[in-house]
Amino acid sequence: MEFKQNQRPGAVKQITSHSNPIVKEIKGLVAQRKHRRQSGLFVAEGLKLATDALEAGWGVRYLALGPEARENKIALEAAAKAKARGALILEVNTAVLGAITRRDNPQMVVGVYEQQTLKLSDIDPKSATTWIALDRVRDPGNLGTIIRTGDAVGATGVILIDDTTDPFAVETVRATMGSLFHMPIVRCTADEFVEFRKSWPGPVVGTHLRGDKDYRAVDYKEPVILMMGNEQAGLSDKLADTCSDLVKIPQAGQADSMNLAVATAVMLYEVRRNYLKL
Amino acid sequence: MEFKQNQRPGAVKQITSHSNPIVKEIKGLVAQRKHRRQSGLFVAEGLKLATDALEAGWGVRYLALGPEARENKIALEAAAKAKARGALILEVNTAVLGAITRRDNPQMVVGVYEQQTLKLSDIDPKSATTWIALDRVRDPGNLGTIIRTGDAVGATGVILIDDTTDPFAVETVRATMGSLFHMPIVRCTADEFVEFRKSWPGPVVGTHLRGDKDYRAVDYKEPVILMMGNEQAGLSDKLADTCSDLVKIPQAGQADSMNLAVATAVMLYEVRRNYLKL
Repeated sequence: MEFKQNQRPGAVKQITSHSNPIVKEIKGLVAQRKHRRQSGLFVAEGLKLATDALEAGWGVRYLALGPEARENKIALEAAAKAKARGALILEVNTAVLGAITRRDNPQMVVGVYEQQTLKLSDIDPKSATTWIALDRVRDPGNLGTIIRTGDAVGATGVILIDDTTDPFAVETVRATMGSLFHMPIVRCTADEFVEFRKSWPGPVVGTHLRGDKDYRAVDYKEPVILMMGNEQAGLSDKLADTCSDLVKIPQAGQADSMNLAVATAVMLYEVRRNYLKL
Repeated sequence: MEFKQNQRPGAVKQITSHSNPIVKEIKGLVAQRKHRRQSGLFVAEGLKLATDALEAGWGVRYLALGPEARENKIALEAAAKAKARGALILEVNTAVLGAITRRDNPQMVVGVYEQQTLKLSDIDPKSATTWIALDRVRDPGNLGTIIRTGDAVGATGVILIDDTTDPFAVETVRATMGSLFHMPIVRCTADEFVEFRKSWPGPVVGTHLRGDKDYRAVDYKEPVILMMGNEQAGLSDKLADTCSDLVKIPQAGQADSMNLAVATAVMLYEVRRNYLKL
């Protein structure tokens, strides 16, 4: 980790100006994927996500506290924890918080965290329940909601195949509601996935228009990989061909299709049906 | 229906100026619920939604066609149909289309339609499968996605209780992907619902933190009312008390909760499980 001048970790810094270089840096992380990629950092809004990140042991670069947060016990505890872990604590006004996240009513805490992703070789099928593999998912809200639902059903993690929307974009992180910090994310190409899948010991189930099986007719013996395709195009042929089962979710009305995050949730509750109890 | 000067129905009008009064009127419908309420009109983007609206017999006030649409066979057929039904056809440029819907890449067709909602007394339990009742749902994306999923599972319609987000907001309509034009929408107060529910012949099932039943343990004999609560607060006590069954969807991971549209979809696929076949 390299730090710029005046960004000594573990310190506290007051900022009131929008043109402060750290504020500009954070705004850049919100605005552009390029900046997130180059720095390996990302922005998550809110105290809940800060406590989730700290509990799950993620690296924190900055924690910006608005005036409200500086009178909030949980926020001050989070700041102390982040500081002990080497973060720079920023005391900012509401206008700066709003400018960072481009919101009229900003959250009282905004954090900058270090990205964490895994490789396919990090996956251990023996300790896996269900991995969710997503082919070129485009919408940040869909990706975030899928990560959140995956966490809710006790899935093991999410595999992002080929060119997907950025899991560390502010909109994605927001939609995960903190589950980003609990769910491992793997990135790979379709070719790498096809190779990896050859040694997978359980079913690899994709939803597909060519699917000839009802989604309830598969024996989802774990470990399972559930594959879901792009919002418009669905699963690529290469990935569909690598599935052990291609299934469909039946529909009854006049809708052409379902929202991707909704279809993934319906699948996940079926895949994990025998494992989930009240 | 009253028409302002120069808005003769069934005519075609070229518009290139952002300050044209019709353009301003449409922008007002996009921007403010007040304008939608006063006029009884709303805006839906896209050719697919225009054809859905026309097929389903909704009233069309304006159909604005961009340059691309004026060379598209389906768009021209939609325009002819809308014109025959009394709509004013607007030939606009891409800049005007973009200004109307506040998008950088606007759809080539934007329509202004007449709102349709029903009352509780319009509901016939004998011809119903499942009605979805939503208590104070706030997020337009959630509401739109729920309407879309309701359509996909063959639900009969959606009941909006008390103060909910506007089903005719552009973001809601967008998320319905056209299902708004197929799904009846009823609006009522909680008191009206409680009264109406007394004569409902089937189960009224709510998801609730107090729920002691697994969501899969209910006999969903149709007609069913599925009740879902507000994103933060859940179902009000008054509405929870009126349910025949309060259920929970089991979770396994560290997520606190699920997205409302996702939870509704999981419930709907369970409620209609015995009725949906490939």
